[in-house]
Amino acid sequence: MTAVPTFQDVKEAAARIEGMVHRTPVMTCSSLNDRVGAQVFCKCENFQKAGAFKFRGASNAVLSLSDSEARRGVATHSSGNHGAALALAANIRGVPARIVMPSNAPQSKRAAVAAYGGTIVYCEPTQEAREATLETVVRETGAVFVHPYNNDKVIAGQGTAALELCAEVPRLDVILAPVGGGGLISGTALTAAECSVGTRVVAAEPEAADDAYRSLQAGTILSANNPDTVADGLRTSLGELTFAIIRSHVAQIVTVSEDAIVAAMHYVWERMKIVIEPSSAVPIAALLDGGPDLAGQRVGVILTGGNVDLLRLPWLPSPSQ
Amino acid sequence: MTAVPTFQDVKEAAARIEGMVHRTPVMTCSSLNDRVGAQVFCKCENFQKAGAFKFRGASNAVLSLSDSEARRGVATHSSGNHGAALALAANIRGVPARIVMPSNAPQSKRAAVAAYGGTIVYCEPTQEAREATLETVVRETGAVFVHPYNNDKVIAGQGTAALELCAEVPRLDVILAPVGGGGLISGTALTAAECSVGTRVVAAEPEAADDAYRSLQAGTILSANNPDTVADGLRTSLGELTFAIIRSHVAQIVTVSEDAIVAAMHYVWERMKIVIEPSSAVPIAALLDGGPDLAGQRVGVILTGGNVDLLRLPWLPSPSQ
Repeated sequence: MTAVPTFQDVKEAAARIEGMVHRTPVMTCSSLNDRVGAQVFCKCENFQKAGAFKFRGASNAVLSLSDSEARRGVATHSSGNHGAALALAANIRGVPARIVMPSNAPQSKRAAVAAYGGTIVYCEPTQEAREATLETVVRETGAVFVHPYNNDKVIAGQGTAALELCAEVPRLDVILAPVGGGGLISGTALTAAECSVGTRVVAAEPEAADDAYRSLQAGTILSANNPDTVADGLRTSLGELTFAIIRSHVAQIVTVSEDAIVAAMHYVWERMKIVIEPSSAVPIAALLDGGPDLAGQRVGVILTGGNVDLLRLPWLPSPSQ
Repeated sequence: MTAVPTFQDVKEAAARIEGMVHRTPVMTCSSLNDRVGAQVFCKCENFQKAGAFKFRGASNAVLSLSDSEARRGVATHSSGNHGAALALAANIRGVPARIVMPSNAPQSKRAAVAAYGGTIVYCEPTQEAREATLETVVRETGAVFVHPYNNDKVIAGQGTAALELCAEVPRLDVILAPVGGGGLISGTALTAAECSVGTRVVAAEPEAADDAYRSLQAGTILSANNPDTVADGLRTSLGELTFAIIRSHVAQIVTVSEDAIVAAMHYVWERMKIVIEPSSAVPIAALLDGGPDLAGQRVGVILTGGNVDLLRLPWLPSPSQ
């Protein structure tokens, strides 16, 4: 296990990945402001390379490798955005990336990893098979395992989104971001605590995958157990590093219903004219549902990604029907 | 009929509507650049108020009214973005707007006009009924008719998008925009001719609604005759003002197939993570299809709007099936 990162690590990550990652725009929407009764500033990581904030942490991890580590390359298990992000970051540095994916991973996710030059290693679609396959890959190749979130370099990289947001939009009262494994919210909380003192960091989570909420209540990590939520990026459980940071730095975790997530995603597409994935809609759902009382406040939201299968939108009947 | 506008009118429009319209961002996309082999700069009018560039021309028309005209208000016929844009612009100035719409206009379009405070006057869904109903409205209320494109104030307002684009991205080799009634392409061509000398302006049009292409060949306005194209904003015919400007200032009109339009729209949603309507995809289709040879060039594209029924996307089976 790597060490708990600090704000200094976030600043170093920002310097390291500058020029490699997009400095994404902050967008506002007057109808969203009117509806929420607050000023909402959306950090658009859906416009990030590889379509999600995950590219920040992956880039920081890849650029932090020593030359001898880099020759052996990186490996991870992921059926989502982290795998594609790591493949792209490795490709840009010119090092090999091996991505362990379940055999039933969606075609679009497999295509993204392959397009970015990653080598896919398939496994059975169970947590045990993923971990065993990854272990074999690491043993055979000497690759450095880059965990999707329980990794100091990854957490520090994810924190750079909030660093840019706070620099561009001063005096935020609160920043909302979704929580799945907790890499983004941890990096965000570390960053806000130092560079935007007084800004509360609030995590938003699907009710149907409320393991982070329950973990915070219980004081120990409770696992997610294959939750059934449309927010496919948020089905994972916390790690030890992210749990430690969330306990000490996150003010509140709010949960939202599946209907609210789909409605929020539709609202953002319709009003803001941007494509976000369901996980990105989770903090917007918290705003639209009026969960935290934010009247008159300055609210930052990290829109995490925009990788969506355009044939399977959650407000449409499933294509198999 | 109003007079042919000049670049001076565009500059005056820009000063008049500043603060009322959004200065929309210019976005780039490395995978689009790679695919086209050029540097492409997209002016995102899908992020404009009311979701389309039409708000520029409507705002210029409304803000140009004398006080006595303003008291009587404005009127137009439109089943699309112009009606909503005019309603919003009138609402902001606090003057009445009457929008003649066919009785079969989509619910989303009617809702937009109503939400912006416009008064909808329904008519039979024929060109004759539209014009007769509008004439009655104008006679009874004294409202000023603001034509969707064959109007000097509207054309000058639409030109302000290109004015911003040329200021932000100097030395463009070419600007592409779609052509329907011709308001946008006329304003763009007037503007580029003066403020970006040497920049060619190219219009893109659906093959299935190629009346502008044919009109230019014939040297006279040929009408569109209810063309069947997914690009619902481009079904109209040219007007006398727009035809005159296009003849003298537009370098070329390229046409694209329906399949290419749908593929281009899907490409922009998937890669750029922004919501554009089919009409916006027409110049992108021209780029992706390699119509005009633009290798190595600096290419501006005006993405005209983002008003889409999210239940009826053209790459999905129709919901009635």
